Amino acid sequence: MAENILENSLLIERRIEVESAIESVVESSLSGTYAPAMELAREILLAGGKRIRPVLTLLAYELAGGDVRDEVLDFAVATELIHTATLIHDDIYDGAKLRRGVQTLHEKHGLDHAIIGGDFLFVMGFGLGGRYEERVVRIMADTCAAIAAGELKQIQHISDLSTTPEDYYEIVRGKTAGPFASACECAAIIAGSSDRDALLLREFGMELGIAFQLVDDILDLTGDERMGKARGTDIHEGKMTLPIIHALTLLHGDSRRILADVLAEFRDDRWDELEALLEQGDSFGYCRILIHNHLERALNHLYEFPQSEVRDVLEAMTRQVMTRNE
Amino acid sequence: MAENILENSLLIERRIEVESAIESVVESSLSGTYAPAMELAREILLAGGKRIRPVLTLLAYELAGGDVRDEVLDFAVATELIHTATLIHDDIYDGAKLRRGVQTLHEKHGLDHAIIGGDFLFVMGFGLGGRYEERVVRIMADTCAAIAAGELKQIQHISDLSTTPEDYYEIVRGKTAGPFASACECAAIIAGSSDRDALLLREFGMELGIAFQLVDDILDLTGDERMGKARGTDIHEGKMTLPIIHALTLLHGDSRRILADVLAEFRDDRWDELEALLEQGDSFGYCRILIHNHLERALNHLYEFPQSEVRDVLEAMTRQVMTRNE
Repeated sequence: MAENILENSLLIERRIEVESAIESVVESSLSGTYAPAMELAREILLAGGKRIRPVLTLLAYELAGGDVRDEVLDFAVATELIHTATLIHDDIYDGAKLRRGVQTLHEKHGLDHAIIGGDFLFVMGFGLGGRYEERVVRIMADTCAAIAAGELKQIQHISDLSTTPEDYYEIVRGKTAGPFASACECAAIIAGSSDRDALLLREFGMELGIAFQLVDDILDLTGDERMGKARGTDIHEGKMTLPIIHALTLLHGDSRRILADVLAEFRDDRWDELEALLEQGDSFGYCRILIHNHLERALNHLYEFPQSEVRDVLEAMTRQVMTRNE
Repeated sequence: MAENILENSLLIERRIEVESAIESVVESSLSGTYAPAMELAREILLAGGKRIRPVLTLLAYELAGGDVRDEVLDFAVATELIHTATLIHDDIYDGAKLRRGVQTLHEKHGLDHAIIGGDFLFVMGFGLGGRYEERVVRIMADTCAAIAAGELKQIQHISDLSTTPEDYYEIVRGKTAGPFASACECAAIIAGSSDRDALLLREFGMELGIAFQLVDDILDLTGDERMGKARGTDIHEGKMTLPIIHALTLLHGDSRRILADVLAEFRDDRWDELEALLEQGDSFGYCRILIHNHLERALNHLYEFPQSEVRDVLEAMTRQVMTRNE
């Protein structure tokens, strides 16, 4: 297995395939009916992004025995279009100024354009999904309904100090992990795999996605420029991430009161206070253990498949999530 | 043919079928993953509405020779879900307070909920579309891309006094007539009709949709409580409707200057001025001739099909659009 996942040539090839498939979908939409909306959406779509969902899709497809990657590419692109649609719309009500290092659509073009641009990417994603069997489209729709449910629950819990870990997991399964899970599951279905393998890949994606979100939560607090967003964005938006939920549960007395106050009146000069409180309850340690557990489970699902180059790459990607916050 | 279309029992039956299909989709989504988003979307979805797209779908399906209406019902419901999604999102940036006689989602629940509620209905519409052949889903996606393009062009032309009839037609074909056309076309495809019949029904829907929008434009100016929105909504929003575009083109000198001023500074005490200006150029007369022409063309497409009860109903619906503004 490659020591450095980024140097693995199979992974690099798949990333290039994904990028060029996205570019070619954009290109072919820049004339005709799709042009006005694509002109708008392309800025964010081509501004980079990790492309984790479509790359996972290609790799899961191969692990499940698929050998005509062209047949899964439209679906892979659809996962990225739909993901980008949700980002554009989230950014509106989060009031975000930057996305993928460029101005958000609503900042640059106004609310109306951002709503329409996001709608268009949803629609185009489902348009690409139309070539697949009914089951795949139903999973896509179910996944998006779960994203919506997760968003609504997250909004409901903004600045809600009584948010439980169960609430948190429900939100994360809907918003982040669900799309990872369904990308992997649908890839397997498109590859014509057994139901068992499709389910294993679904569970792999779910565990990986949960771990991925937990790492994001930690990075938002510890600060990491690779995230492409400012440190503390979640805190400023009142999002109840697991380190915070853990600290609120564990701390008592004055510490608990100070934490509540820091969260209610967060400013950049209160980082030291917040860090000290999170350390007091070892909240990062707690989250790192959970990340480790989810990734172990993800790997155990992978190990149900025979060893192969593609499995090694998926294993390395999984292990990379673990080291992302170390 | 029934003298009063509302009394035609076939039409009443189809309306009831549509309504109960929509209700049953809502009902079955009120538990599980879909529940939180459907709880939100149902308010607008079940608040009434003319259900023109799904009713047209059922009738076009039958005219095209389809005889298992159950197979087209999901598509019919999808047309209404997607239509409602666009209304929810339009209402956000139009700042509308009421829709179908109830509070708009963003007024009642806030911007975030309205964005998510609309997204959910788009997704659910496409989820229902997933059972149909690729061609149908592609037409659905193309139609939505054209709606987006029409919206963007309409926004671009807000309060733009140099808007041409060509601009107007492009907007209307995208936003209003396109969905009518594709509902009829897809219904024919699902019925297994010939390409010729599918195209005839597409053209029928397009002409009917254009006429429908022109009537809406007139009713916005003349005022009609049946519209479920206040008189002059388009004027207040700066939307360039055809009567206005016509008057701006035809009038010269002082009349043209006063019209520009009335539009720029519209208030309810300026209705008399506006009406006089529109009468001066006979702008309503011009629009009524166009409506008549589009409906004639719609009927000619219908007459390519042999006479039947369902054709009579479609004919009566078409003629009803003509009398709607008389």
